[in-house]
Amino acid sequence: MSRRVAARAHSMLEAMSASFAIAVDIGGTKVEAALVDENGAVLAGSRHRAPTGPERSAEELAASVRSALGGVLALIGPDTAVSPERIAGVGIGAAGPVNLVDSRVSPLNMPVWDDYPLSALVADTVHPVVPGVPVTLRLDGLCITLAEHWVGAASGHDNVMGMIVSTGVGGGLILGGRTVPGPTGNAGHIGHVEIGGHEDACPCGGSGCLEAVASGPRTVAWANAEGWVGGTGEELAAAVAAGDPIALRAVARSGRAIGRAIASAASLVDLDIVAIGGGFSHVSPLLFEHARAAVAERATFGYVTRVQVVPSALSGEGPLIGAAALIHRAEMVD
Amino acid sequence: MSRRVAARAHSMLEAMSASFAIAVDIGGTKVEAALVDENGAVLAGSRHRAPTGPERSAEELAASVRSALGGVLALIGPDTAVSPERIAGVGIGAAGPVNLVDSRVSPLNMPVWDDYPLSALVADTVHPVVPGVPVTLRLDGLCITLAEHWVGAASGHDNVMGMIVSTGVGGGLILGGRTVPGPTGNAGHIGHVEIGGHEDACPCGGSGCLEAVASGPRTVAWANAEGWVGGTGEELAAAVAAGDPIALRAVARSGRAIGRAIASAASLVDLDIVAIGGGFSHVSPLLFEHARAAVAERATFGYVTRVQVVPSALSGEGPLIGAAALIHRAEMVD
Repeated sequence: MSRRVAARAHSMLEAMSASFAIAVDIGGTKVEAALVDENGAVLAGSRHRAPTGPERSAEELAASVRSALGGVLALIGPDTAVSPERIAGVGIGAAGPVNLVDSRVSPLNMPVWDDYPLSALVADTVHPVVPGVPVTLRLDGLCITLAEHWVGAASGHDNVMGMIVSTGVGGGLILGGRTVPGPTGNAGHIGHVEIGGHEDACPCGGSGCLEAVASGPRTVAWANAEGWVGGTGEELAAAVAAGDPIALRAVARSGRAIGRAIASAASLVDLDIVAIGGGFSHVSPLLFEHARAAVAERATFGYVTRVQVVPSALSGEGPLIGAAALIHRAEMVD
Repeated sequence: MSRRVAARAHSMLEAMSASFAIAVDIGGTKVEAALVDENGAVLAGSRHRAPTGPERSAEELAASVRSALGGVLALIGPDTAVSPERIAGVGIGAAGPVNLVDSRVSPLNMPVWDDYPLSALVADTVHPVVPGVPVTLRLDGLCITLAEHWVGAASGHDNVMGMIVSTGVGGGLILGGRTVPGPTGNAGHIGHVEIGGHEDACPCGGSGCLEAVASGPRTVAWANAEGWVGGTGEELAAAVAAGDPIALRAVARSGRAIGRAIASAASLVDLDIVAIGGGFSHVSPLLFEHARAAVAERATFGYVTRVQVVPSALSGEGPLIGAAALIHRAEMVD
């Protein structure tokens, strides 16, 4: 193949898909990496993962990040389908707390990483293959919110809270069409907004926080204390579907708590829509009904009751898509 | 005086103070207007007020606005100290809720003004004297926050919550160095963030809101219910100073509630500093100590416990200075 033909083939490929982001999502059980195109689609075959978790050393965690990234980087090169010029940057969504002042992370569930220079690790791994591209790190909750805004349930709205209700409760904020990272990068942590009437002790040191009331494990624990026999969110979901009265009350209690936290947040920042995902958000549609009913009680303030509360429209690729949005939608990322 | 001398005197005046904002503050008992210069100083003799309140008709309220503005406008003219060219614009701080979508107000304590076109009223009053200047309306809590940021206790910080603790509890937000009005203009309403462990009924329709727990009247009512005999915040302040045990507990309860709301807000939006003013904030320095102690309990999250909680550094001119900041600091006003 002459050089001229090769150049023509390359620009046809570029026209097919002008650029990709390398997306990285680092959580308490695994790290994932993938290539995500400008439309928010994960490139087939590009998704790689490696284990994380509190039992691993700092160097083992770093090795997992390099391993997941390595799978992606193997796809990139002058002789492969994705040339380095087509990589627009690297977006990282990380479990928090984060420290955006110097791009470090201190994830609660990986305590050996205490102010760990994650962006530097990722840059050092990527730049030998793709020189000089930007590396942007944000809290995972913010990335999820960007994904909901880009390709999910919050599309078309300028004032969005994304929420994850799972083992913990996290989230992120987009206000006035721009992300709100906060000066340290930890804004959006709806799980530590308190709920009136609750005083459950929270690992944060406070009490009555949403996470301490309405996370999956806390909801199961409350149901257990009321006499329900079962151990998982899935079992609780089945019990709700079967009409178990304790399970129904457990979902009502957590759903109302979620709604009350949303009402507090909407009072404080004036939201259009809240998109809720995470494993425990699927326990029952009743969770959403109770949340909406709690919001509706704030009848004096139309700017609060107007907020829509909807399920996430993201698949399991959401965190990666959100990390990619840090690059592909950089114009709205503060 | 020849025209030439007059022109020279005029430019000397302009050099002395290049421009003023007409500042308007509309609250539940009065409307005030004044001229405020580029340094945040109220021009001596320019402050005028007129009564408002729930007993007045919509037209009487409008007449009060015109009256307060009239006092200011009388100072402006080609033959007076302040020529129309020196007026940069009109800033209005209004009791809420507001409706920034079309610049209207529906103050809770002036129910006859239901979606009232306040900006149009002010523009129609000002423009015959000062043609064409911009008129900017925002929630009073946001204006207070701008004033704290400009000339008050939050100077030099980019992530600020201003709070007013008085008959009600209100506030405003500056995040990333820009105001956060929210799409309807009502963002910053910290008074309707819930407090764990409290279920006091709130006029908003919710329960456990900060305003329902820690406003001046609610604190006094709680102390009364505990057996304290007294009727005002001032009397409560005296009782605290004298060491009355019920008064001390009342201030501890409200101070802790304020701190817990701040911790929720800091979790959600990642704040540098919170400046608290309003009549009841002066009840005792212990109010601040209890608030800070409650924030400090969130020990897991350094980004929450780092928030400074300080008294307002504004005088009674704060609301007017904040309204003027809508014009003089327009570059940070969203």
